[in-house]
Amino acid sequence: MTNCIHDHGRWGKGDQIGAAGHLLTPEHTLKALGSVRNGCIIDLSHLIEIGAPRMAPNQSPYHIQVGPTSAGSIRRRRKMGATNDAGSNLERIEMTTHVGTHIDALGHFSKGDMLYGGYSATVTVDDFGLANLGIEHMPPIVTRGVLLDVSRFDGSDHLEAGRPVTIADLERALAAAKLSIEPGDVVCLNTGWGQFFMTDNERYLSGEPGIDEAAARWLTAQDCVAIAADNMALEVLPGTQHPEIVMPVHQHCLAEAGVHIIENLVMDELIERDIRSFCFMLSAVKFKGATGCPVRPIAIV
Amino acid sequence: MTNCIHDHGRWGKGDQIGAAGHLLTPEHTLKALGSVRNGCIIDLSHLIEIGAPRMAPNQSPYHIQVGPTSAGSIRRRRKMGATNDAGSNLERIEMTTHVGTHIDALGHFSKGDMLYGGYSATVTVDDFGLANLGIEHMPPIVTRGVLLDVSRFDGSDHLEAGRPVTIADLERALAAAKLSIEPGDVVCLNTGWGQFFMTDNERYLSGEPGIDEAAARWLTAQDCVAIAADNMALEVLPGTQHPEIVMPVHQHCLAEAGVHIIENLVMDELIERDIRSFCFMLSAVKFKGATGCPVRPIAIV
Amino acid sequence: MTNCIHDHGRWGKGDQIGAAGHLLTPEHTLKALGSVRNGCIIDLSHLIEIGAPRMAPNQSPYHIQVGPTSAGSIRRRRKMGATNDAGSNLERIEMTTHVGTHIDALGHFSKGDMLYGGYSATVTVDDFGLANLGIEHMPPIVTRGVLLDVSRFDGSDHLEAGRPVTIADLERALAAAKLSIEPGDVVCLNTGWGQFFMTDNERYLSGEPGIDEAAARWLTAQDCVAIAADNMALEVLPGTQHPEIVMPVHQHCLAEAGVHIIENLVMDELIERDIRSFCFMLSAVKFKGATGCPVRPIAIV
Amino acid sequence: MTNCIHDHGRWGKGDQIGAAGHLLTPEHTLKALGSVRNGCIIDLSHLIEIGAPRMAPNQSPYHIQVGPTSAGSIRRRRKMGATNDAGSNLERIEMTTHVGTHIDALGHFSKGDMLYGGYSATVTVDDFGLANLGIEHMPPIVTRGVLLDVSRFDGSDHLEAGRPVTIADLERALAAAKLSIEPGDVVCLNTGWGQFFMTDNERYLSGEPGIDEAAARWLTAQDCVAIAADNMALEVLPGTQHPEIVMPVHQHCLAEAGVHIIENLVMDELIERDIRSFCFMLSAVKFKGATGCPVRPIAIV
Repeated sequence: MTNCIHDHGRWGKGDQIGAAGHLLTPEHTLKALGSVRNGCIIDLSHLIEIGAPRMAPNQSPYHIQVGPTSAGSIRRRRKMGATNDAGSNLERIEMTTHVGTHIDALGHFSKGDMLYGGYSATVTVDDFGLANLGIEHMPPIVTRGVLLDVSRFDGSDHLEAGRPVTIADLERALAAAKLSIEPGDVVCLNTGWGQFFMTDNERYLSGEPGIDEAAARWLTAQDCVAIAADNMALEVLPGTQHPEIVMPVHQHCLAEAGVHIIENLVMDELIERDIRSFCFMLSAVKFKGATGCPVRPIAIV
Repeated sequence: MTNCIHDHGRWGKGDQIGAAGHLLTPEHTLKALGSVRNGCIIDLSHLIEIGAPRMAPNQSPYHIQVGPTSAGSIRRRRKMGATNDAGSNLERIEMTTHVGTHIDALGHFSKGDMLYGGYSATVTVDDFGLANLGIEHMPPIVTRGVLLDVSRFDGSDHLEAGRPVTIADLERALAAAKLSIEPGDVVCLNTGWGQFFMTDNERYLSGEPGIDEAAARWLTAQDCVAIAADNMALEVLPGTQHPEIVMPVHQHCLAEAGVHIIENLVMDELIERDIRSFCFMLSAVKFKGATGCPVRPIAIV
Repeated sequence: MTNCIHDHGRWGKGDQIGAAGHLLTPEHTLKALGSVRNGCIIDLSHLIEIGAPRMAPNQSPYHIQVGPTSAGSIRRRRKMGATNDAGSNLERIEMTTHVGTHIDALGHFSKGDMLYGGYSATVTVDDFGLANLGIEHMPPIVTRGVLLDVSRFDGSDHLEAGRPVTIADLERALAAAKLSIEPGDVVCLNTGWGQFFMTDNERYLSGEPGIDEAAARWLTAQDCVAIAADNMALEVLPGTQHPEIVMPVHQHCLAEAGVHIIENLVMDELIERDIRSFCFMLSAVKFKGATGCPVRPIAIV
Repeated sequence: MTNCIHDHGRWGKGDQIGAAGHLLTPEHTLKALGSVRNGCIIDLSHLIEIGAPRMAPNQSPYHIQVGPTSAGSIRRRRKMGATNDAGSNLERIEMTTHVGTHIDALGHFSKGDMLYGGYSATVTVDDFGLANLGIEHMPPIVTRGVLLDVSRFDGSDHLEAGRPVTIADLERALAAAKLSIEPGDVVCLNTGWGQFFMTDNERYLSGEPGIDEAAARWLTAQDCVAIAADNMALEVLPGTQHPEIVMPVHQHCLAEAGVHIIENLVMDELIERDIRSFCFMLSAVKFKGATGCPVRPIAIV
């Protein structure tokens, strides 16, 4: 089954939009909007700041520095004759798109030279952006979100690093929520690990609980369009076949199934309010050729 | 009246959330969602790429460079014993947040040392991010968008640079659309100038049609929570009192009224489909202390 | 002869130090130092600033932004109990190393997959720096510099873009200077084109006078260790076989002969003072794996 | 005495070149060159690479990423008709200039709002570079270097963090070397702490042995033009009056005396070869308005 790359075959060679592009219809959007009861918006994202956790070396450091400043711009404008002292503050940000709460573009991961849609990494990975499968190909999504909370399955408020979340765990969480996964869903996994984001980054990065490859395949087979989690990588780290098999969930979801991965999602308020399904919205900035995008997904309830 | 900074007094000294934070309620969201008929999502943003137009020197150049690459990461992982050739593509982006379609944080502009909410720029403009009024204080917004199309008021498909869009123009556009501005609206101005974005950046940056200060005050007085336009700066450039008075619309909207500005918005599909009011959604990434954020706003119709 | 890559064979497969590493001896340094008469130091470099000319897209934009600032650092230090108001100013620079007056590392250019020393680009071009042939392998050099001034050969104070500087031109310049090239020399070519650096960047980048491939081979055959010029690329642009053959001088000097190239050199004061040979010093910062380095070479006379 | 800022008064208000600019003459250069015996060049710098030690937050992280690559540039050039497969490798570097072995510009430190030469930080610290006192004002220097080795004064091969190096220590080192400081010298202090650079960065950054303020004043009073050390900051950390007085040596040397500071210098080979005075050369790249510069100083012996 590992060699049977059924999913990307599903939409043919050259496809760039994946599950979200093919499966989501206006009907999904309408249905999700129809589920909204009181119009409250719940933010599902972290603050992004210097020191944001990152998996080095691939995820490079985030930096922000203010400038030009109002003081400097006022000086420059006075020299040009202005009298109203309009001060502009801007900043310079240096980042990889895989910082904070973010979504992976389908071109983020390969199996050898093969990217999703049968694209060759050799020709797609261009110097100034992916020639194909960049985040600009992902549509904005407004669909149902389903929260699977496995954080308390081991007796504390979180699973430990290296704990695989299996199909059985997901089924148990679904049963507890009295839900099943439907085509077009965004599946949001809460492991409890997210509590260490920026509070104990060393621990947060030391490994993580997350889904194993079988669970990933089980989820994508149910036609979800994205899978999110409250950790760095969605998948269990170290992996169950570490170090021989690295990041198999990424390989499957992105390169095979065309299903986006969302990382460092924040579900605390949903959990507190006991919300397990909701209208989920995410709109990734179209950085051309980018391999992902920091995002601020929301739930509307 | 110029000296009567009534608006920010409205929510008191120390306010950080402005009109969007105070005026938008779940009812606005519910009402906007209720207006959706068929669930179609219309993207209102440009691609962001190298060479994106910018107002130098304040807006510094955008750069994206791919790396690490799948080839490099596969080599590194093989050395650590991996056999599944998981290749990761990432990138490095260097930018100001005022690139492409973006929203201005309230701390983006000052009047002398005074920022919105009575904050002093001297203490707020910190080295690594604004201490107050950063984009993270802006809530995600789901509200009604109103499109005011003035692009054909001068007989061609766009207004020319330096052409002020006045209160009378806005009233005429509203009358044509059979709409009035309601509290909580996002006002979207289409001048036709957006057609030069990335097709003729030199022209796009040479000036622009846009609202004058009176029009800005007229709009904010009607309690809109953001004003968007299909140009670099929303306001007419050169300004009507250039060079003595620089960017008065920015000063008024951001520093006085606490009303966000959205720039480089794309309304072509809305225009084509003759849509003048719609459910507008925008969710800015919480870059801590940032003076704005590139965004991908959408209309749902 | 094109296929006879004799030079890099000269020091064997796997060599990383090239002509400068092999040919320069303490005797060259001693001899160069011995030529100094009065101890005057002449700067041979340009200022590097925003807007520095660059050959897009390969040479990406230079950016500098000040911060942290003394004001901000004093505030932070006061909070930690400091009373002496020590303010620190720093900056953030984003650049390619090929900015301003700079030197090319041997790994900067390839012939297909082949780099100097027989290294394969596929394995050498690592994500975070060249695994081989980075600028850190270049020794500091103190040797004789020889200035060949061809700027007035066509009747004005500069040669025009596209004008090849040939072996005959070099011989004529040498004869005028009553010099011959000796092993270990750095050859400095003055075309007059450098006057357009930052004074008319559009022209500076529109093409340039420079050596053709035959002249390059003639120079490297005389065992110079670096070739410098007052233009962007040393070689004539467009090339004499443009567009079929691109940058043959770079391919020959760097990938075959192991001879460094120095660009955007400033020789005005040397010319004015009629100095044609001098003690040349250059010391490139050891950015590990970098493909070049901005430098400030000097002449001591 | 703290308030008696005698030094910068020495060359008057508005001076930008400091001790190196005023004290160094061609005679110093000639004399230094005259001391060279065999022409050997000794590199006094570290490799600069990702993970280079830095004093956060002021010193921001160093990043290098390769690209464009030979593979990508060959593809682009083939599309334009080229047949010779000229591949170009470049990189993107993001840095503060205070990385690795580097020199501080005179504008790097202030006493409150006062910079060297009586410049006000308020007006000098411009958004895109220091308006005054940037590194471009520093001349290249070729002068005598004097190595003061205090590394074994406490019985091991290094002094410990927090150990002040006093006037008495410097005198003892000078006596051992049978040297005295002469006007125009670059003083190079070896504490032994440099062995932890990139081998134990946590320790390297935890504090350091270094000169106290009295020693700094004693050195500058003898008309040295720069003071270098094998640590991050030249001065003892934590300082002797920590936390009330922060970085007094920087304030004195840079803002008062106009004497440059060189950090992370490597003197291992000089020590091994028992060299205590030598011809010292340093040439900082003219990044306009930069507060310092990474450098590769050399000794010629």
